[in-house]
Amino acid sequence: MKHARVAVYGSIYQAVEQDGKLQLEDGRLVDFDEVVWLPPVEAQTTFVLGLNYADHAKELTFNAPKEPLVFLKGKNTFVGHNGQTRLPHDATHMHYECELAVVIGKRAKYVKKEKAYEYVSGYTIANDYAIRDYLENYYRPNLRVKNRDGGTPIGPWFVDRDDIKDPMNLSLRTYVNGKLTQEGNTRDMIFDIPALIEYLSSFMTLNPGDLILTGTPEGVTKVNIGDEIITEIEGIGQLLNQIVGDELFNR
Amino acid sequence: MKHARVAVYGSIYQAVEQDGKLQLEDGRLVDFDEVVWLPPVEAQTTFVLGLNYADHAKELTFNAPKEPLVFLKGKNTFVGHNGQTRLPHDATHMHYECELAVVIGKRAKYVKKEKAYEYVSGYTIANDYAIRDYLENYYRPNLRVKNRDGGTPIGPWFVDRDDIKDPMNLSLRTYVNGKLTQEGNTRDMIFDIPALIEYLSSFMTLNPGDLILTGTPEGVTKVNIGDEIITEIEGIGQLLNQIVGDELFNR
Repeated sequence: MKHARVAVYGSIYQAVEQDGKLQLEDGRLVDFDEVVWLPPVEAQTTFVLGLNYADHAKELTFNAPKEPLVFLKGKNTFVGHNGQTRLPHDATHMHYECELAVVIGKRAKYVKKEKAYEYVSGYTIANDYAIRDYLENYYRPNLRVKNRDGGTPIGPWFVDRDDIKDPMNLSLRTYVNGKLTQEGNTRDMIFDIPALIEYLSSFMTLNPGDLILTGTPEGVTKVNIGDEIITEIEGIGQLLNQIVGDELFNR
Repeated sequence: MKHARVAVYGSIYQAVEQDGKLQLEDGRLVDFDEVVWLPPVEAQTTFVLGLNYADHAKELTFNAPKEPLVFLKGKNTFVGHNGQTRLPHDATHMHYECELAVVIGKRAKYVKKEKAYEYVSGYTIANDYAIRDYLENYYRPNLRVKNRDGGTPIGPWFVDRDDIKDPMNLSLRTYVNGKLTQEGNTRDMIFDIPALIEYLSSFMTLNPGDLILTGTPEGVTKVNIGDEIITEIEGIGQLLNQIVGDELFNR
């Protein structure tokens, strides 16, 4: 089932997709464009993979990592479907990154690959924008690169784990103003989902509501003010985001 | 200053009123009708006064209480400005109640009347709907009377304490489909705000984010499906709410 978290009629609701509409938890049906789409998951701790597709590492002229390259994201950075992302005036090169986001459903510690999916509650799409200007080095995408307000669109749907038959064989695509610019498949991850859960849970506890953003394949390009960016993952949907300029903001 | 909490552009924002528009915390200006208005305060514990205006107690044929008559409300019951409130099919008499809501700004224990306003951060408007069918007795407005989902519209604004010169002299009005049906003044409260804070803090701790809904004056009338209810308090604004029927809901 596809779940959303939306604001409408003065409240925040959980909703599910029902024949092209949203059905609120109390039964009301509303159109997609009647609501404000919020992040479908209220992230607790968010783990993000850097360079987890060999082709993407290559396009950035990095070597593929020997173990998962993971950094954290703050809660400030998430924004829902149909949201806006700011291209700051001091950024000359901000690019999108279409990523499969894995949602942890139960406390996980010392989990072996074979059991890893038992700890997953479902999946969503993240667009993990990066402001390359501030990328200092391979290991440290700092907060100005990856943690801006609104810099991580997520959604529209949270899809239950069992509705995705093979999460390691999903096509990912990004469209800029309708034109396909990025295409890949989750099977090309260097560290797959079971490996990531085994890895992370080997030295930390993963908790319900934690997210793992699993990295992006090749095909990232620079975005510009006014662009409409769609990140799409097979079986989940299309996440729409708009790039806006500094002039809308006062700081 | 008038503060709101709104959903727009994929996120939830704090906003302030600025020349008839909402200015988001990041500087963007949006029209009132572009956003979903959420409760301006995320209530922690909510204390609600019953029969705190002598005229209202009289219209319900109750004697005015000798000490504050206080009950609690759950978080499920709040809904923002422009929200919907359900008139359940089993309710033959649901009425509105326009109330000044006091927001606690700091931890308060054993507070004397003279110092009470130091513990207030500001004010908003609540419409504390009551489903009279389930009113069991004077002291126990049960959950079916006062704690339904969406049964307590609140907002639109949180107004800073110091912007309300005399909270004990504010007119309250309710309009049903544009017609004035309730009119009163906070000076007619039986227990005024300092007395309520002294009373509550004498045997409990009040915490930041706690709300005190201070009761309603006379003039409550039954609402019907399709009604538009405006509750208004001088210096704060107008809180709009729509009464909807059971048929929109599936349980």
